[in-house]
Amino acid sequence: MGSYRATGEFRRDSRYITTRITADGQDGYPVEPGRYRLVVSRACPWASRAIIVRRLLGLEDVLSMGVCGPTHDQRSWTFDLDPGGRDPVLGIERLQEAYFARFPGYERGITVPAVVETTTGQVVTNDYARLTLDLSTEWTRYHRPGAPRLYPEHLREEIDAVNEVVYEDVNNGVYRCGFAGGQDAYDEAFRRLFSRLDRLSERLSTRRYLVGDAITEADVRLFTTLVRFDAVYHGHFKCNLRKLTEMPVLWDYARDLYQTPGFGDTVDFDHIKRHYYEVHKDINPSGIVPLGPDLSDWQLPHDRAALGGSPFGEGTPPAAPVD
Amino acid sequence: MGSYRATGEFRRDSRYITTRITADGQDGYPVEPGRYRLVVSRACPWASRAIIVRRLLGLEDVLSMGVCGPTHDQRSWTFDLDPGGRDPVLGIERLQEAYFARFPGYERGITVPAVVETTTGQVVTNDYARLTLDLSTEWTRYHRPGAPRLYPEHLREEIDAVNEVVYEDVNNGVYRCGFAGGQDAYDEAFRRLFSRLDRLSERLSTRRYLVGDAITEADVRLFTTLVRFDAVYHGHFKCNLRKLTEMPVLWDYARDLYQTPGFGDTVDFDHIKRHYYEVHKDINPSGIVPLGPDLSDWQLPHDRAALGGSPFGEGTPPAAPVD
Repeated sequence: MGSYRATGEFRRDSRYITTRITADGQDGYPVEPGRYRLVVSRACPWASRAIIVRRLLGLEDVLSMGVCGPTHDQRSWTFDLDPGGRDPVLGIERLQEAYFARFPGYERGITVPAVVETTTGQVVTNDYARLTLDLSTEWTRYHRPGAPRLYPEHLREEIDAVNEVVYEDVNNGVYRCGFAGGQDAYDEAFRRLFSRLDRLSERLSTRRYLVGDAITEADVRLFTTLVRFDAVYHGHFKCNLRKLTEMPVLWDYARDLYQTPGFGDTVDFDHIKRHYYEVHKDINPSGIVPLGPDLSDWQLPHDRAALGGSPFGEGTPPAAPVD
Repeated sequence: MGSYRATGEFRRDSRYITTRITADGQDGYPVEPGRYRLVVSRACPWASRAIIVRRLLGLEDVLSMGVCGPTHDQRSWTFDLDPGGRDPVLGIERLQEAYFARFPGYERGITVPAVVETTTGQVVTNDYARLTLDLSTEWTRYHRPGAPRLYPEHLREEIDAVNEVVYEDVNNGVYRCGFAGGQDAYDEAFRRLFSRLDRLSERLSTRRYLVGDAITEADVRLFTTLVRFDAVYHGHFKCNLRKLTEMPVLWDYARDLYQTPGFGDTVDFDHIKRHYYEVHKDINPSGIVPLGPDLSDWQLPHDRAALGGSPFGEGTPPAAPVD
């Protein structure tokens, strides 16, 4: 997943398979109902973005989803939740097989989310950052009626700018804390993380959402880190200046999203906790999964509606989840 | 320090050197000013009991104190804070030397607190549970004027009963969480810990102190665990159902004690954090010490005085610390 600089700083391997699935099929993979399968883990924050966006946009019927189990070995995510341990559509046991089908001997990370072409069994893309934007902009023909506009043109510049700092300091920042190769690298990542969270708290103290007055891609990306914050990042990754529950604005903001259809109903805290604590034996050798924290408070009411805005803008909430 | 049962439960090695220093010198070691040196680490909760009690009773002038550094290797606590790395009174670099002076090849844990006879350089006792009680009951001749009665006869039965469950479920309970050899042993220790903390919260919701209406040995023993709770046990030992700051009664109670002369002024959070996170490489292989939590809140006011009682009973607070 990453490597270390001489300074001990964790560097995420950002070389992804950048093939795109587009309306015009420029890379040979046109948007087409039933042709692709989104493979995810509910544990993974990068995959969770895609789970949420697919659901918000109502793409369930045109883009099916395979869910890997929360833990995996050094080689690959596996379909151990499925009967017989095989994905029922792709027929494979390990996600690695789909990577090898496209690139024999593929040596980079076997990551989720990955979109696999069902006809060939080959991975098309694992470029998670591009993927959700393409779901918003290239799959428009298949969006459900009332789908929110998560990446509207007039807000893209602002969304991109927010996403960039949120990625550096928060989404990837928690990993830079947890996987730091030394005290200095950790200290630096920690300070950047909490300094950024302070600034985000300030931003969100007067507005309900990060950009504009409805949910956007920017909220999806911040949410997937915040929802994991107390469950895993606080202890496991040593992001422990404060719990999310001790940052009132962000805690209200996160609960607001959690209680919005399409967000909390995609979250599996058990998968999240088991993944981090069982897979990262290098930072949790015992593999013991903490029983805390108490997560029932995610359902507590919040006052965010008073800040104005409306979660789905002129659209409507998605129906109850089907997968 | 301990071993594991077949169930994965952590068992503290409770075989200590049980020689006592008494007023009548029954074991050959009579109470005598200047004859003994208390060796501690401010990181260690068991040693911290003795630091607090010595100070509350004003025994600084008759029982000197040597302070080991927060970290140590497999062999021993060391006097690395002292000039030249040697205890200025005992002249030794490693506490192990004092154990070997009494018992050549001593094979059990080299633990703090330890009381060393300055004339022979031999450890007299490391029986931490007995030690503080003996400071209260055997060293009475040298107590300062106004010293509190930490183990008064008419409350001993109740203090002993409280100490027993606090030891099992809390003092040692956090270690049983952190050093559990498996998920089941951890789960069991975790449930007992938080169930006990709930009951202690209930007890302390109507009374300022655990037993009677002034501080006693029981408060000292609960305090040394509570003061480490968020700093190390919450994350490092996975005692993470709630932070101490999220348990209102216990948090107020702990702050009340912290702000009482003799308690908070013995605490070194830096030593505490470095000890646990740097020494226990088996549960924190990186040795990285978290920058959090924010500990400044220990100085926040509390309303405990309204519950009645008085910290020093008919006595007085100790003067400012001298070591």
